[in-house]
Amino acid sequence: MNPEAYLEEKGQLIDACLDRLLPDKAAYPQSLHEAMRYCLFAGGKRIRPALAFAAAEAVGGNPDLLVEEACALELIHTFTLIHDDLPAMDNDDFRRGMPSTHKVFGEAMAILAGDALQTEAFKILACGYTRGAHKAEHMVAIIKILAEASGSKGIVGGQVVDLESEGKTIAPDQLEYIHSHKTGSLIAASVIMGGILGGASPEQISHLRQYGECIGHAFQIVDDILDVEGSQETLGKSTGSDQKKRKATYPSIIGMDGAKKKGMEYYQRALDALQSFDDRADHLRKIALYITQRQK
Amino acid sequence: MNPEAYLEEKGQLIDACLDRLLPDKAAYPQSLHEAMRYCLFAGGKRIRPALAFAAAEAVGGNPDLLVEEACALELIHTFTLIHDDLPAMDNDDFRRGMPSTHKVFGEAMAILAGDALQTEAFKILACGYTRGAHKAEHMVAIIKILAEASGSKGIVGGQVVDLESEGKTIAPDQLEYIHSHKTGSLIAASVIMGGILGGASPEQISHLRQYGECIGHAFQIVDDILDVEGSQETLGKSTGSDQKKRKATYPSIIGMDGAKKKGMEYYQRALDALQSFDDRADHLRKIALYITQRQK
Repeated sequence: MNPEAYLEEKGQLIDACLDRLLPDKAAYPQSLHEAMRYCLFAGGKRIRPALAFAAAEAVGGNPDLLVEEACALELIHTFTLIHDDLPAMDNDDFRRGMPSTHKVFGEAMAILAGDALQTEAFKILACGYTRGAHKAEHMVAIIKILAEASGSKGIVGGQVVDLESEGKTIAPDQLEYIHSHKTGSLIAASVIMGGILGGASPEQISHLRQYGECIGHAFQIVDDILDVEGSQETLGKSTGSDQKKRKATYPSIIGMDGAKKKGMEYYQRALDALQSFDDRADHLRKIALYITQRQK
Repeated sequence: MNPEAYLEEKGQLIDACLDRLLPDKAAYPQSLHEAMRYCLFAGGKRIRPALAFAAAEAVGGNPDLLVEEACALELIHTFTLIHDDLPAMDNDDFRRGMPSTHKVFGEAMAILAGDALQTEAFKILACGYTRGAHKAEHMVAIIKILAEASGSKGIVGGQVVDLESEGKTIAPDQLEYIHSHKTGSLIAASVIMGGILGGASPEQISHLRQYGECIGHAFQIVDDILDVEGSQETLGKSTGSDQKKRKATYPSIIGMDGAKKKGMEYYQRALDALQSFDDRADHLRKIALYITQRQK
């Protein structure tokens, strides 16, 4: 299956499961549940859940058993997008082709919807045990990994350094820090989650982590490139915003050609990390290529 | 031991443990870790952790075994305080006697510090198993309870209804909703956490839940009363702010005498819920009285 079809198929699974897991938008307080669902169902690519499925397959696990857990990844991702777009942060008016959550529901509701989406992610993971799908030991391991990827030494830490770097000249290693934390950490956690629930050995987990970190970097480099070369129509969000805010990006620090070369290097390193895996890891390999070559 | 001394003793335990668990304020990114610690160590009463300890004692458990887990309660509590104080929400300039987090670190950092404190709470709970202190089954149960208490049908839901009620005439049952969600849910979860980790039977958990819900109501009623009758100096936060913002409170809906009577009713119902417990539940009984009679 080509990666587009794989993402499409897995995306539909995730959308249906998220719709079932999240409180109905008519549930009280209605405004909050509407706001929580608004950005969540605005057509995200569901790359993180797909990576979790593909990682489970790569180690011989059954991806159907981790649909709920993969939803938690999308909840964390959406929570960070909603908060990043806030006026006090990146002040972005568009996301996934629609007005940002705070533009539609107001700032207070956007902050609270983000807060509740984060909470919901951990609740769903805790329920992975209570509904009998997984061992409690696996669930606490995954909750720890997801929390580490999201918190002050993960996504939130990356966002802080990103905000503090605006308008400043920063070194390539600081840019690496921002990328590996803001984007790489959750992508790597997605791959590791799939590995753990798929029954990976510690050695396999270590390779999966390496793969995840590399495609995390590749993903963000392509994001930076698309912010310059992509079209708002295709991307569904404002382009040129990094430059407008004088944000440090790979193209701004090492040039457009350098950035493209670096993206390919990370792609190659991601493939190298999977050398000991057989063809059951092909979806991981194809998603790596998709991430590196995507136009949106 | 009188409840003040008990809270003092347990508060010191919690402060020392929080200091040990949280990333050092010199840890990168420093600004974020400073902001996370700022409101957390501004002299909170640590009532929620104390309730968890007292509930564990009430069922014959050893409270020393749940110090880390009780810290998670304080992290969740502090995260909600920081976000509630934001300009887009309650716009409060003071908290625990000091300028609010956003007044010192700015809005973006206050949002992110709150986000990271929530994440940290779940990480600490997940670590309760990995550091060998508790069964994984107990930890996922507690993570679920804490997530339910915090999310869209808990604290966040209560805050949404609270914000939407500002300046409006609301019915007493809507006020009950706000209180039971904004304040009651985490207080009840604290008591239940202590019960579970202390080895309570399902019947004991049910009584503890009832106790927790009642003192949660009593706590918020006293908060409303102190906002009218208390002094800013003693409370460490602005008084009269409910009236200024035309917030619905018990005194504004059922009058000051009615509010005081209602507070005592909830206190009595909390005691009733503990009828089948022996004198090991005395700290729970004393904390209930302390909550009802407190001046700050």
